[in-house]
Order: sequence, then structure tokens, then C-alpha cells
Amino acid sequence: MGDRRPGAGWVQTAGMPQLHGRAAAQESVFARMSRLAAQRGAVNLGQGFPSAAPPTFLLDAARGALGRFDQYAPPAGLPALRDALGADLGVDGADVTVTCGATEALHLLTLALLGPGDEALMLEPVFDVYLPQVALTGARAVTVPMTLAGRGWQFDLPALAAAVTPRTRALLLNSPFNPTGTVFSDEELAGIVALARTHDLWIISDEVYDELYFGPRPTPLRTLAPERTFTVGSAGKRLEATGWRIGWIAAPPGLTLGVLGVRQVTSFCAPAPLQAAVAAALPLARESGFYAGLRAAYEERMTLLAGGLRALGATVFEPRGTYFLTALHPAWTAESLIDAGVAVIPGEAFYAHHAAPPGLTRWAFCKSAAEIEVALERLGFVADEAVRM
Amino acid sequence: MGDRRPGAGWVQTAGMPQLHGRAAAQESVFARMSRLAAQRGAVNLGQGFPSAAPPTFLLDAARGALGRFDQYAPPAGLPALRDALGADLGVDGADVTVTCGATEALHLLTLALLGPGDEALMLEPVFDVYLPQVALTGARAVTVPMTLAGRGWQFDLPALAAAVTPRTRALLLNSPFNPTGTVFSDEELAGIVALARTHDLWIISDEVYDELYFGPRPTPLRTLAPERTFTVGSAGKRLEATGWRIGWIAAPPGLTLGVLGVRQVTSFCAPAPLQAAVAAALPLARESGFYAGLRAAYEERMTLLAGGLRALGATVFEPRGTYFLTALHPAWTAESLIDAGVAVIPGEAFYAHHAAPPGLTRWAFCKSAAEIEVALERLGFVADEAVRM
Repeated sequence: MGDRRPGAGWVQTAGMPQLHGRAAAQESVFARMSRLAAQRGAVNLGQGFPSAAPPTFLLDAARGALGRFDQYAPPAGLPALRDALGADLGVDGADVTVTCGATEALHLLTLALLGPGDEALMLEPVFDVYLPQVALTGARAVTVPMTLAGRGWQFDLPALAAAVTPRTRALLLNSPFNPTGTVFSDEELAGIVALARTHDLWIISDEVYDELYFGPRPTPLRTLAPERTFTVGSAGKRLEATGWRIGWIAAPPGLTLGVLGVRQVTSFCAPAPLQAAVAAALPLARESGFYAGLRAAYEERMTLLAGGLRALGATVFEPRGTYFLTALHPAWTAESLIDAGVAVIPGEAFYAHHAAPPGLTRWAFCKSAAEIEVALERLGFVADEAVRM
Repeated sequence: MGDRRPGAGWVQTAGMPQLHGRAAAQESVFARMSRLAAQRGAVNLGQGFPSAAPPTFLLDAARGALGRFDQYAPPAGLPALRDALGADLGVDGADVTVTCGATEALHLLTLALLGPGDEALMLEPVFDVYLPQVALTGARAVTVPMTLAGRGWQFDLPALAAAVTPRTRALLLNSPFNPTGTVFSDEELAGIVALARTHDLWIISDEVYDELYFGPRPTPLRTLAPERTFTVGSAGKRLEATGWRIGWIAAPPGLTLGVLGVRQVTSFCAPAPLQAAVAAALPLARESGFYAGLRAAYEERMTLLAGGLRALGATVFEPRGTYFLTALHPAWTAESLIDAGVAVIPGEAFYAHHAAPPGLTRWAFCKSAAEIEVALERLGFVADEAVRM
């Protein structure tokens, strides 16, 4: 029946109909690195999920919702969650659609906005799921490289503008930006919005790390271009519950019914008891300072990881947001690192049309300090030496 | 900003780019009838979700999983759930993919199996989501009508065979069949399998009501054609938790990686804590006789509803499976019934290419006996009279 090892592809029985070409994709690098990490006992600094459990106020809300919110939610989401998100984001709850995670939000937005012959413009490195999502619609992904210099990752607006064609229909942006950690400045955002208005482009703004920043608070793109921006968000990233699959879309006023036309057929609705829990948790997280605490904790671990990696000879690009950092080291590959007992994501995972910078790796620091310390030790870092450096 | 009333469509701001045509779909009839039922205080015998809470063993398992299974699951599903499903279905757990409900399972199977120019063959009446799901892939849905006579809904194999063309790639079948309640006999299934083998067709077998039958146990199609059958199942239907969004695909041996190529980009993974709960609950449900109890309870309510509707002058087609029955009454429309305080699904919701039988409605009996009694009373049924009839 063919080779069943993930990543090895699969073989069809002779005489069988063929699966559609788009079904031939490989296991995602994130799933693969997590699987390898578990199999080989590596510290998993690859896939971006927290080591910590979600906050007690979220877990308690879910336990209370079970037995009360167990049947279908409306496709747009439980009214209480749409209202809570509206209040949190400063939009009308009627413009919010709840999805099975941000991945589904992006999937259904590409389906709603793009069709065969269209082009979607995005930056590279690129969060890997955007490319097959655009391809599924029959549209083409066009990527513009970020540049990487001593100052870190730089965004090139003229290059973005030069890549617009009459077929360009949407910009797909991500700020705070996974994997680079870039947060676009208000000046950069203004340039992006002007470009979108000049060419009548939709903006899909992936802001799943909206509460995870280490400098000024990122400006939501929708506040600059409310008429054309679809914001994507994630309870999993905000509340350390990436497996709950509660994401959302805040659409331009009046366009939610168009989103729902697709949303009803991709998965009908998001998990109802977890929606109810997130609805209760969002105001609690805001009022209690939970996000500020999360940022402080993550920044501490980022500093720990960045310091260790630098001591090991890497060039580290400190992020302004997300819970990832990127590093360059001529001797490191994802393979050599997992051999040493540390799982990371190779830079090539974020490149499709351009060459990845040699020696680029992405490191997640949404892990415990203990895990980060063990990872650094496995790579040869000695804490005392670092102190002397 | 356009008319925001659901169902009224939406209007784009002048000078804006257009949403793709597939985004212009309307609110689903199921969501609409549930919304109207809530707004107008109608008894909701429309959308198929149980009035009862899920069983305690499922809720307890979920409460225990919270705080332990909160981060990303592997895209194929938690290993414990894949194994539990493998054991339950009699397949290898490696051939199981867990999805965000059966709706997503069907969505990603159509994406994996169909492409532009292909045809998918199905019966009509048709569960409404199949049609936009096939359309999203660029393929065409071809429907063959069931006939409705004194004996009830009849399946016409020669008509199905006559509808096969060189472009036909897949059969999309549903047994137990929503809305008709039909369960295909082994002879009918054998005919379907022979047809699929002759023309090298994939079979997408939507068996979400596999444990809800009132006659002989339905034969799973995969047992007759394991090499080409993708079975779709649902924890929501089995365990009275339609809002949990845990569905699954059992693929032909060796083809799961092809399914996963799409699954990773539609929503990455299904809700992890609810997956863990379903993994624990599946063997408990089987061992404790939960499904037999569910069937007995539903059959009792089916008898109550069918008897009442007959007393009110309707022709009732009793189902062999699902928790729906269909009825014909010349004076009843979904509108007249909701005016009387009872929400049902109009027959036209299940017809796209052929005319619905006049006066056809679908009634859900996965509701409490009290709700069914109130619905019947609102329609003029008097229990004592029924006894005298």
C-alpha cells in the first residue's frame, strides 16, 4: 500500500483514481519537528506552542461551559464571543466571525477574496501555510523578500510596490511577523495602506501576536484602513491555548456575510464550549493585566535565549513581537541541532521563491526557562562562561 | 455599508475590490431556522442538534483533559484518539484523520479528491453543504433524484449509473441519509461499489449517523470497498455534542498523507482537549451500551412525532436511521409552521437541481419528548383525539 512514513510521500494502488494534485503536500515542518522532538527526546524550541498551561481563569471558564454550550454555535460564533471580541478589538461584534483557529481564518479569507488568475502579495520569509492556502484558491502567491543586514530584518516598501500587477487582489501581511519578529512602524503601515488604496487591494492582516510585543504596542492595520482590512486573531496565541482552535476575523463593516458564505462550508462553526470560555476570559485577561505579564515573562526568556545563542557564536535578531527569534550561525542546521537534542525550525521552511539566508534558524521562546537552559547546555553553553564574556 | 440583515446579501462600498463570487453565498437554512426559532420563541425541530446535554462520562473526560491537552495536536489528531477510532471502526489508527467536525472532513475530502472539470455524483435530496463544498473545488455536483412514493424514499441505481460520465471522479453518499432517513441495504451498497469499481471512482461515505439506526445495523461502505472509500464520522452526532467539532476521516490504507496535505492548511488540527475527551469516551460509550440507549430514546420520540404528525394529516416517512423524519402535508411550509411556533427545515433546502416534492418538510426528533409534545400541540394536535383515532 505504499510507503507510510510521513514525508516519504505515498503511493497509490495501481488502477486507482488519482488524488488531486493539491493533496500531495508533505507533512508540515512544524508538525514534523514536533514529532521528531518527541521521538528523539529533543527540547522542542521549534513549533510555537507554550510549555505553560493556559491561565486558570480560562480553564475554569471552560469547565463551567461544558454541559451548557455543547451544541452547534451559529457559524459566525456565539453572540457572547462576538460581542467580547468587538469590545476587545474596538469593532462592532457584527463584523466578527469566529473560526477554528487562525489557520482556518486565513484559509477562508483566501477562499473569499481570491480566485484563479489572481495574485496575493506577501513578504518572504513567509509563514509557511500562506502559500498552500493561496494555491488552493487557484491564485498565485507573489513574495517580496525582506532584507537581512546588521540592523536586522528590513522591509522594502518600493519593492512591494514594484511587485503589484493588474492581477494583484490582496496583500497578506503579518505583524508582529512570524518568523522575523518584525513589528511594522506606523510609517511603514501608512505606506502599505496607501499602496492598497492606490491599487484597490484587500488587506489580510494576520495579527495573531497582537498582544505579544516588546516595544511600542503594534498599531492594528484595520484602524488605518477599516474599509479593506480583514484582521485575523487567535485566542490560542493570546491565552496560551494553541490547541483550542478559537480564532477570529474582524471584517470591514458590512462584509461579514460574504465571509460567512465560505465559513459555513469549511467547518460550519468553532467549538462551542471553548468559544464560551474565551468569551468569559477575554475581558478578564484585559482587566487583570494578563497580557502584560505574558509579555514580561516572554521577554525574560527571550533575553535568556538570545544571550545564550550569542555566547554560542550566533548572530541573533531580537524580535519586537511574536514569541520567536531568528538566528544565524554558519554551523547550525535544523538537523545538526536536533542531533544535539534541540528542535528548531530551519530558515528554509519560510522560503519558497527566494533563497534562505544560510545558517538561518527560528527559535521559539514560549517555553519554560528550564527548557531553554537545557537546550543551551546541550549546545555547549556554560552559564559561568557567559557571565565572564 | 449595505444591508446587514442576514440573508439579505451585502453591498460593497463603491470603488472597492470585489469579493470572489463564492463568498456571496447566503446564510445556511439551518443557521437561519435556528436563529428564527430563537427570535420567535419557536420549538426548534429544525437544526439537528440534541436538546440533551452530552453524557456525563464525556463531560467529565473533557474537564479532566483541560489543563493537560491545551496545545496543538498533530494535524492527524491526538494519537490516543486515532487509536480509539481505529479500534472502534475496525481500521488502523494510522488511516484516521481527526477534523473540526464532519463538515470540515467533507470540505477537505472534496479538496483532496476533486478539481476543476471533475464531477461528483450524489443523490437528491442532498445535505445542503455538499453542493458549495464541491463548487469550491472547481468541480461540478451532479445529482440523481431519489423517488418518493407510497413506500417512501427509493434509491435508483440504474439512474445513478446513467449519470456517470468520463469526468465523474467521486460518489458522495450518505447512509443513514439526512434528510430521508434511508439506510442503504447491503444489495444497494454492493451495486454502488460495483459502479465505483467499474468507473474507478472514489467514494466519500458520510456516515455521521452510523450509530443512529432503527433497523439492522448499517453496513459501513469501507468494509465493501476499503481501497476507495473515505468514511466520514462525527463525535457530535454519536455523543450528543454537535458543538464540539470533533469529526474524522477513515481513509483507504496508505492515503492519509494525501488527506493531511490539505488538512494542515484548512485548520491545522482539531480542538485538543475535546479530542482527548472523545478518545476516553469512545470505548466507554461502546462498552456501556450508550448507543443502544440513544437509539431506544430516539426511536420513542420518533414514534411520538410521527404519530402526532399523522394525526395532523401528514404523510410521514419513517426513517431507518438519522434523527430526522420527512413528512408531506399540502398546507405546511416552513414559514407557516414557524408562524405556528414550530421551526422545521423546508424540503427545498435539500434540492438544487430538481424540484422538491410540494409540502415536504424535515423534522428533527433529537429533542425532548416535552418539546415534541409542545410542537404538536401548537399545530393543533390533541392527545386524546389521537388516542381515539
